[in-house]
Amino acid sequence: METLRVALGERSYPIHIGAGLLDSSALYAPYLEAASAAVVTNEVVAPLYLARVKRALESAGARVAEIVVEDGEGAKSWQTLDRVFDALLAARLGRDTLMVALGGGVIGDLAGFAAAVYQRGVAFVQVPTTLLAQVDSAVGGKTAINHTRGKNMIGAFHQPRAVISDIAVLDTLAERELRAGLAEVIKHGIALDAEFVVWLEANIGRLLARERDTLAHAVRRCCELKAAIVAADERETGVRSLLNFGHTFGHAIETATGYGTWLHGEAIAAGMVMAAELSVRAGLIGASDAQRVRELLARAGLPTVGPALAGERVLELMAVDKKAAHGRVRFVLLEAIGRATLRADVDERLVREALGACAPGAGASR
Amino acid sequence: METLRVALGERSYPIHIGAGLLDSSALYAPYLEAASAAVVTNEVVAPLYLARVKRALESAGARVAEIVVEDGEGAKSWQTLDRVFDALLAARLGRDTLMVALGGGVIGDLAGFAAAVYQRGVAFVQVPTTLLAQVDSAVGGKTAINHTRGKNMIGAFHQPRAVISDIAVLDTLAERELRAGLAEVIKHGIALDAEFVVWLEANIGRLLARERDTLAHAVRRCCELKAAIVAADERETGVRSLLNFGHTFGHAIETATGYGTWLHGEAIAAGMVMAAELSVRAGLIGASDAQRVRELLARAGLPTVGPALAGERVLELMAVDKKAAHGRVRFVLLEAIGRATLRADVDERLVREALGACAPGAGASR
Repeated sequence: METLRVALGERSYPIHIGAGLLDSSALYAPYLEAASAAVVTNEVVAPLYLARVKRALESAGARVAEIVVEDGEGAKSWQTLDRVFDALLAARLGRDTLMVALGGGVIGDLAGFAAAVYQRGVAFVQVPTTLLAQVDSAVGGKTAINHTRGKNMIGAFHQPRAVISDIAVLDTLAERELRAGLAEVIKHGIALDAEFVVWLEANIGRLLARERDTLAHAVRRCCELKAAIVAADERETGVRSLLNFGHTFGHAIETATGYGTWLHGEAIAAGMVMAAELSVRAGLIGASDAQRVRELLARAGLPTVGPALAGERVLELMAVDKKAAHGRVRFVLLEAIGRATLRADVDERLVREALGACAPGAGASR
Repeated sequence: METLRVALGERSYPIHIGAGLLDSSALYAPYLEAASAAVVTNEVVAPLYLARVKRALESAGARVAEIVVEDGEGAKSWQTLDRVFDALLAARLGRDTLMVALGGGVIGDLAGFAAAVYQRGVAFVQVPTTLLAQVDSAVGGKTAINHTRGKNMIGAFHQPRAVISDIAVLDTLAERELRAGLAEVIKHGIALDAEFVVWLEANIGRLLARERDTLAHAVRRCCELKAAIVAADERETGVRSLLNFGHTFGHAIETATGYGTWLHGEAIAAGMVMAAELSVRAGLIGASDAQRVRELLARAGLPTVGPALAGERVLELMAVDKKAAHGRVRFVLLEAIGRATLRADVDERLVREALGACAPGAGASR
């Protein structure tokens, strides 16, 4: 087991990474103030891992409530959140209860937000069961549910007390989910660490083959990169926004197609190609850099072209924001492989060109 | 105008107290980062003060969205909160928007919680328009909505950037609301400051007559007392719970009668008498001290006897908590007038006796 630390003063916490950590009672024990806990998970993860986590908590002396919600992005709704509150209250769990988020990004966001606002805030531990959650969403304290008018519109910054990343659980991950997770792994490299990109280019095959040591290295490196960014800018007023590389276009893809049609990681993959193409057109990087982004993603089995609709959605977003008093679409672009930069002064014409280069057909023809 | 400060490090903020502050543009200007603001108020307060607050914000250069919700405790619901989010999103207000809570405790709790979780948190200013909100709920950062299973179960600690307490708005307060506010004023004295109790005994008539200087003094003293407590224990892990003097019984009254039948301040008044009676029976204070509590509240026109149902509710609460693993009803009792103390070791028999002494008839016969 390796342990990193997210340095946030009194809100600092460890990230434990290793195979078989899920039912290590000692990793939960320090956070069981009142000897009660609630595990929030979904109907896919529950049959696989809930009993083991529950036993680990019980071994540490806790009475444990189980809260199983539906699978998928739809769970990030007020209705599901309210069912979580209802179960917590029915079990008479107080402010000193420990919440455990056992699942992927959706469960982490939902249970983390529940922990942020239940009785004005309770402690929680992230036990991410997808690669995407282990390398990204479980670290950094962003929690949220969706509003009908927008994704992640209602939420809180609420740091976990610990993140327990069990590499062994990636064995049961669906192939498509593994690839979607690799999109965020690749994002960390392309946005922040050129050396890590070189490592990924050399190891993408081993990652797809789920070699544990290779996966553990990737998870650790992503967590190191993210922890440093979060420590510097917890509430995303500056540098943390670089982690959104590919996300402006990616969210447009998700919105245009309806959440769930594309997995988040898939949308981000195509979004990163668009952002790289825009960076080429803005004169920041060469065409060969964009090609390198595209190739690495393609080798990971990820889409490099978005649906036509997504382009219209991006332009619409830019048009609306121009009308707003101070609104402005800001793009995370690349100055080099491994060095992202935030730009608010991007010409709409360049965006149209970049979208054209990434439209169905355009990308495929390369 | 007088200005106090709640000392909370980087979350410190001023409380401005004076007559005619409501439309002072300069008091809002420092918090208008993005030149946009949303005023949340209710249908009773809106016709009286919304236009003035809006003008003040506009004079400071802000585009202002108005969000008017229904009057009453019912507004502390998810449904109303969602309408607030909907209005904020429809107006395309971003993370740099300033929320302004214009109203009493319900509006402060609702708008404060909306500010806590809208786009993971935006800045907000409290403009309390009831005495209760000015002396208590607008200070200290507690925000919440209710759940069908319990009051204030979903919320956050989210400190305002400033509190603007305009004493002149108390002119339009309904008599019953004024008295309910005096209950919390009296609570501050009885729980924390014997000298202030003496002052209240001498000035209760002037407060009921709404003499502005007298009201301003009471608001200032309560805010001083509360600010010191909040600075010492922001998240209520210790001393802050002393501010809940009268609230265990008070909440039982509110629950037993249905929220809204008794005003919160009225329930707290009867609750304080019960807590004082229990303190007598626990051997902490003399019967004359309890009588002094009762008389001051009676002079303020407040109820000193709760409904019979409330007693049953308290005992039920104790019974259920005994069954829970670590649950325990803790009572805030008095060691002396002006000195509250937290006790978890209260004998149920004494609680029954105290309830008997405060039952309808028992109190009235004194």
